[in-house]
Amino acid sequence: MGGDFGPPVSVAASEIVLKNHPNLHLQLFGDEQQINPLINSFSDDLKSRVQIKATSEVVLMDDKPSTALRNKKDSSMRRALLSVRDGDTQACVSAGNTGALMALARFTLKMISGIDRPAIITAIPTSNGHTYMLDLGANVDCDADVLFQFGIMGSVLSSATDNLKQPKVGLLNIGEEEIKGNEPVKQAAQRLSECQHINYIGFIEGNDIFSGKCDVVVTDGFTGNNVLKASEGIVRLLAEKLRSVFERNWLNKLVGLLIKPILKSFKQEIDPDQYNGATLVGLKGIVVKSHGGASVKATVHAIEEAIIEVEKNVPQRIAKEVEQFVNSRT
Amino acid sequence: MGGDFGPPVSVAASEIVLKNHPNLHLQLFGDEQQINPLINSFSDDLKSRVQIKATSEVVLMDDKPSTALRNKKDSSMRRALLSVRDGDTQACVSAGNTGALMALARFTLKMISGIDRPAIITAIPTSNGHTYMLDLGANVDCDADVLFQFGIMGSVLSSATDNLKQPKVGLLNIGEEEIKGNEPVKQAAQRLSECQHINYIGFIEGNDIFSGKCDVVVTDGFTGNNVLKASEGIVRLLAEKLRSVFERNWLNKLVGLLIKPILKSFKQEIDPDQYNGATLVGLKGIVVKSHGGASVKATVHAIEEAIIEVEKNVPQRIAKEVEQFVNSRT
Repeated sequence: MGGDFGPPVSVAASEIVLKNHPNLHLQLFGDEQQINPLINSFSDDLKSRVQIKATSEVVLMDDKPSTALRNKKDSSMRRALLSVRDGDTQACVSAGNTGALMALARFTLKMISGIDRPAIITAIPTSNGHTYMLDLGANVDCDADVLFQFGIMGSVLSSATDNLKQPKVGLLNIGEEEIKGNEPVKQAAQRLSECQHINYIGFIEGNDIFSGKCDVVVTDGFTGNNVLKASEGIVRLLAEKLRSVFERNWLNKLVGLLIKPILKSFKQEIDPDQYNGATLVGLKGIVVKSHGGASVKATVHAIEEAIIEVEKNVPQRIAKEVEQFVNSRT
Repeated sequence: MGGDFGPPVSVAASEIVLKNHPNLHLQLFGDEQQINPLINSFSDDLKSRVQIKATSEVVLMDDKPSTALRNKKDSSMRRALLSVRDGDTQACVSAGNTGALMALARFTLKMISGIDRPAIITAIPTSNGHTYMLDLGANVDCDADVLFQFGIMGSVLSSATDNLKQPKVGLLNIGEEEIKGNEPVKQAAQRLSECQHINYIGFIEGNDIFSGKCDVVVTDGFTGNNVLKASEGIVRLLAEKLRSVFERNWLNKLVGLLIKPILKSFKQEIDPDQYNGATLVGLKGIVVKSHGGASVKATVHAIEEAIIEVEKNVPQRIAKEVEQFVNSRT
C-alpha cells in the first residue's frame, strides 16, 4: 500500500469498492499494524472479504527498478504481483513507484507472447467522452513493431472496457499527410493500415487527441508522457489565471461566489479523479497504476478499472488478438 | 501574402505596424492587383514607406517543399526571402506553408556556421510570463548535437528579446532523474551542462513547460509539435465544456451573461494572438512564420516579433555565440 498517502487512502477506497461489488474480495499488501486499525470499522460482511497480507519491505518512490527487483524480495508491490501470478488474485492495483512496478510486473507476470514491451495506457477526456492513449512513458524508444503492438493492445482494451466493436485507432504524428513523421511512425502506419484486425483511421495531430476523433491514440512513451503532463500543466495554468481574474477586485470576487456552484459542475466534468488508473498492458496479468497522490475517489476509480479488466479478460483477449494476427501472417 | 485570409489581413496589419514604427519600411510581396486597392486608404506617410513587389506565383498550403523550391521561382515567399538574402529587407514574415517556407529559407539564406538544422521556436504562456519552446516541428529526429544547438539558439533568442542576462534553459524529458530519457536527450543534457555559455537548469517535465520554471524549453520537433498542438486541443476542449455549462439552463445562461466581461478579461490573458509569430532560427536571416489563420492583431504581433529580432541582431548573436563555443572547445 504505497502512494503518497499510504493505507488511509487505499483502505478507505477499498471499503467503498467492496460495498459496490458484493462478490469482490481484496487482499491488502503492506504494514499489518497500519492497515489493521483502519479496517476495524468495516462491517462484518466487508471484513470477511478482506485479507491483510503482511509484508516487511516497501519500494520507495525513488528506488531504482533494479533495487526493487533484486533487494526487496518482500515488498508489498512484489508480493501483490506474485499473488496475481499464482492465481490468488486476478489483478494488482498499486499507487507506488511506476518504474519499479513496471520492472517487477514484467519479471513476475511475463509478457504476452508476441508483445515485446509493456505499455502504459489510460483514458483521457475528449469532447464526446474519452480516448485511450498509449504509451505514456514505459518506452522512450519505439520502433514500428512496438508502435504496431500498441495499436493492437489499445484497440483490445478500448473494445473491452467501452464495448466498442471497432474502436478507431489513430497514430500521433506532426501532420496528417503520409510524408510526415519519423521512420518508425511511417512504418507503423503502413503496418496498422494493412492489419484487418484494427480499425486504423490514420495519422492524427496533437489537437485531435482531445477532439474525440479516435478511441485510441498510439504514440511512443516519450511523446505520450510529455503530451499528457503538458496537458495537465496547461489545465493548471488556466485554473490559476481564472482564479486570479475572480480575485482581481471586490465585484469580481462577489460574482465568483455567485458562480461557484456552476464552476463546481464544470470542474466535475473534467475531474481528473475519474481518469485515475493507468493500465500496464502487454503483461500476462492485470496491473493498474494509481496516481501517487490519488484521493480516495481516484483510488476507487483505479480499483474499478482493474475489476472491469478482470471481467473482460483483457490480457487473454490481447493474447488471442496477437495470436490471430500472427497466424494470419504466416 | 499567403495564409488563409491573404492580403486583406496582412495589409491591415501592415498599416498598424507602420503607424507604431515611424522608421519602418515594408515590402509587400504578392498579387499587385489585390494589394493596390487595399493600401489606397493609407496616409501619404504610410504609403511612402510601403513598396509593392508584384509576384506571379503562389506557394499553396498543400504544395510540397520540393515544388516550392523547384517549380515556383517567382512565388511571393521565395521573392521575400531573396530580398532578405540580398539585403533589401532585414526580415521576412510569412503566413504561408511552413514546410515550404523552411525549405526555401534554408536554400536562400543558408544556415549559420555551426548550426546543422533550422528550428521553429515560439513563446508560449506561463504562470509568470512566457517561455520559448523549440523545436516545434522542423526536425522529427534530433541527435544530441542538434538538441544542444537548440539550447544555444533558444538561449540567445530569449536573452535578446526578453533582455535576460542568463535565460534558464531546460531540456524536456519524462522525468527529472539523470537515468530517464532516450540516448540523444541524455547526451544533450551532458553537453548542455558542460557549456558555460548556457544557464542549463536540467531536465524538466511536461507540466513544467507552463509553470514558468525556465525561459527556454528544448525538445525535438516531434515532441514539441505534439505538445504544442495537444495544449491547443485541451484549451479548446475546456472552453467547449465551460460554454456548455453556461448553456445548460436559463439560470446558468443568465449568470453567463453577467460574467461575460470577466470571462473576456480572462480570455485576453491567454489570448493566442499575442503569441503568434514563430521564428525559424539557425538561418543567416530573420524569418518569422505567422499562423495560417492569423487575425490582424495576431499578424501585427508576428511582424513586431520580426522587428525586435532585427533590432537585437538575433542571427548575428547566435553566430557569435556558436563561434565562441566552438573556439572554446578547440
